[in-house]
Amino acid sequence: MARFFVFDLTPDSGSYTLTGQNAAHAQVLRLKAGERVTLCDGKGLDYPASVMEASRSEILLSVDAPVPSTAEARVAVTVYMAYAKSDKLEHVIQKATELGAAELVAFPTARCVSRPDSKGLEKKLERWQKIAQSAAEQSRRGLIPQITALSSYSEALKRAAQAEKAIFLYENERSRTLRQSLENGSFHTLSLMTGPEGGFEPAEAEQAAQHGLEICTLGPRILRCETAPLCVLSAVMYAAGEY
Amino acid sequence: MARFFVFDLTPDSGSYTLTGQNAAHAQVLRLKAGERVTLCDGKGLDYPASVMEASRSEILLSVDAPVPSTAEARVAVTVYMAYAKSDKLEHVIQKATELGAAELVAFPTARCVSRPDSKGLEKKLERWQKIAQSAAEQSRRGLIPQITALSSYSEALKRAAQAEKAIFLYENERSRTLRQSLENGSFHTLSLMTGPEGGFEPAEAEQAAQHGLEICTLGPRILRCETAPLCVLSAVMYAAGEY
Repeated sequence: MARFFVFDLTPDSGSYTLTGQNAAHAQVLRLKAGERVTLCDGKGLDYPASVMEASRSEILLSVDAPVPSTAEARVAVTVYMAYAKSDKLEHVIQKATELGAAELVAFPTARCVSRPDSKGLEKKLERWQKIAQSAAEQSRRGLIPQITALSSYSEALKRAAQAEKAIFLYENERSRTLRQSLENGSFHTLSLMTGPEGGFEPAEAEQAAQHGLEICTLGPRILRCETAPLCVLSAVMYAAGEY
Repeated sequence: MARFFVFDLTPDSGSYTLTGQNAAHAQVLRLKAGERVTLCDGKGLDYPASVMEASRSEILLSVDAPVPSTAEARVAVTVYMAYAKSDKLEHVIQKATELGAAELVAFPTARCVSRPDSKGLEKKLERWQKIAQSAAEQSRRGLIPQITALSSYSEALKRAAQAEKAIFLYENERSRTLRQSLENGSFHTLSLMTGPEGGFEPAEAEQAAQHGLEICTLGPRILRCETAPLCVLSAVMYAAGEY
């Protein structure tokens, strides 16, 4: 069934008109009166709907009461990824969205080789949010992850620590495994924090531990900075019973 | 400690001379007499070694007895990935190597939009093997995954079914989860099979079941063909106690 993200739907209106890109998409699909579609508010609610009238530029829909999206994970994972080269960050935004992340947060660390200046940041955020929306559409999610950029490392730690569980992946950690951390108690919100190309500095790992984050290893193989968050996210979703 | 892949090491020789690219790499690292390095045979054995003499073009090493690489996973996972567009296949080869795959096998299916012809295949395989070697070096593995290309789907099924466990990820499967399959008995060898851009055809899934592969879902979110194998591989490594 065709799905459309719409951001201006009034919950009780009972009708909605697809316009612009959504109407163009509906044209490609050759939607006709009587067909069923789904409108998604991008925040986790799906609205079943029926096509009433379809013209070239507009599709008029009759909209039913919303139901929670069935494509969203039971655990809300926020991926905290240190600034990395643009293509890597964008790769992680796309893939983490497919894999079911609830939110992505970029933050600076001592060894970050690239980070956008405040002037360029607004444009970057707009671009990143578009990548997330496109990946959410493609993977048929009900929620478009919010992309946030922080300007300090300690701000990222404070924010990450607010989740019921906060995990910090560190290549110099030798003993504590991700499994030990995940199997220790249940949780509905989780923060996952991974470093930049050059890794975290030892002082940064200490600071994370002081904020209550659990420092974990990802085993003996060194993962690239764009691979680590996706590997952990996949493992977390598996551990949470998603597949 | 510096690591070098060498493929012409005689186990009992007691000495080895780094040449070519390895010698150039040693130069960059400014290796000096007395320093310890590791030679890897790319098949899972590490040889501890000491620098005896270092010149511009050659590094003479004294080589100790081999020890099994500590970076290899306890479970040998072969990733069977349907032919996809070149950049996607190469992405999976690089990332699956980082994530610890023992072997990768490309194979054709009905909906594959691209597959190399037999003339181009030799060059492709050479390129793919280089990508695997480079990723193995970067992630400090002891084994370079072998890349194999098969020319028929049924050949891929027969080969995949030979592992102690063989899992087939299918987006139309609704009930059997990856977890149910992985938690059902122990295994040391595992095949993971994922489809092309357009997914497997229903008849192909049936054929896989007839060969004894376990058909599993990856949950409600649709993963791209290059994301699915890496997601499952991460989950399998987690389930196998790798992190």
